[in-house]
Amino acid sequence: METGIALAKKVAGQKAVEYIKAGMTVGLGTGSTAWWAIQEIGARVKAGLDINAIATSDQSYELAVALQIPLITFEEITQIDVDIDGADEVDRQLQLIKGGGGALLREKIIAAASQQMIVAVDEHKLVDTLGKFPLPVEVVVFGWEMTARKLAALGTQTVLREKNGQPFITDNGNYIIDCAFNAITDPATLHTRLNAIPGVAENGLFVNYAHTVIVGYENGTVNTLYPAR
Amino acid sequence: METGIALAKKVAGQKAVEYIKAGMTVGLGTGSTAWWAIQEIGARVKAGLDINAIATSDQSYELAVALQIPLITFEEITQIDVDIDGADEVDRQLQLIKGGGGALLREKIIAAASQQMIVAVDEHKLVDTLGKFPLPVEVVVFGWEMTARKLAALGTQTVLREKNGQPFITDNGNYIIDCAFNAITDPATLHTRLNAIPGVAENGLFVNYAHTVIVGYENGTVNTLYPAR
Repeated sequence: METGIALAKKVAGQKAVEYIKAGMTVGLGTGSTAWWAIQEIGARVKAGLDINAIATSDQSYELAVALQIPLITFEEITQIDVDIDGADEVDRQLQLIKGGGGALLREKIIAAASQQMIVAVDEHKLVDTLGKFPLPVEVVVFGWEMTARKLAALGTQTVLREKNGQPFITDNGNYIIDCAFNAITDPATLHTRLNAIPGVAENGLFVNYAHTVIVGYENGTVNTLYPAR
Repeated sequence: METGIALAKKVAGQKAVEYIKAGMTVGLGTGSTAWWAIQEIGARVKAGLDINAIATSDQSYELAVALQIPLITFEEITQIDVDIDGADEVDRQLQLIKGGGGALLREKIIAAASQQMIVAVDEHKLVDTLGKFPLPVEVVVFGWEMTARKLAALGTQTVLREKNGQPFITDNGNYIIDCAFNAITDPATLHTRLNAIPGVAENGLFVNYAHTVIVGYENGTVNTLYPAR
């Protein structure tokens, strides 16, 4: 049986799945808490739940295939009913930092196409102010050094994300630059400034995206938060 | 000898090269007017002008190699002194639409890294209001159908750009969606809205980028415009 943080992720991920009803099109997030949600969706599909799903990463796609969750493509749909995903930080206004797993761009495309985004996190992801977690920014490979300089000019320390000693490559063929802002007091303004930089494909701030945040605690309880907006 | 529109492009492209001084790092644009500029740069390099250049497209890169213009990479530089490029439309505030050739993202990265952007166009590119030329928007391939719907919701007709019956692929591995807005009265606001859409890597509006616009006329004369800002 899971304990501690694993239990917190599990109960949050499982609770989020309660928002899925028969006939829905469902976005499948990426990461350790979304993993629990996808496992639960797989169990419900096996028990007869009729849904279609679309994945935010190759990783979640493969998990869904393994669990025999029916998958569809963007060509076949006009909207997604509910998107279930995790987050790296959640502030009191339910604004998010995502992208620790490197899937932020696809996650944001799916979230933006969804009627509802349900975010499942463990209690340690809740923060007063975003930014202790370095903000992932997805950038095109061409001229990334110049893009990193433009990012640094916004007042952050930048690190090109690596994997096995090579630059980490996203599912879209881009790089990730992790930006240590420490405290992001105005996520909406920063979001606009970041996306105005040529070379920035997308950034990990999800401003006014979350409809519901499910928080799992290490003691196995969950709490559901709704934005004031 | 060139006449008409070819002459207009040639005189504009050649005039722009006068902004290049020995020792500079120069951005090389893409397109039919930039082609003339690059030819002129090649001639001056052959005559002894000492510069380094960086190209905005594979096409311009190959042209520069053929003309023996010394090329450098982003790793080697911290800024570009002057960028010479064309445009598809130029309004009275010297705001631009670019991307007809599909190189808008790299062109914008280079322009943003440049001390001065010199734009060379023929007289037919001057407009009162931007937007008759469909605005090119570079989008990631994943979920492009959804991104096109988000674009259409801004009030435009969208067309996925094709080449030989297949989607056109940019140098960055993305698609281009051409957006017929007809009249873009507030380019700065539209620019922000476009880049806020997840899946939009960059758009062809160059707002407050041009430092100087050189207009070539079919009668072989040129006129130089400076922004009021």
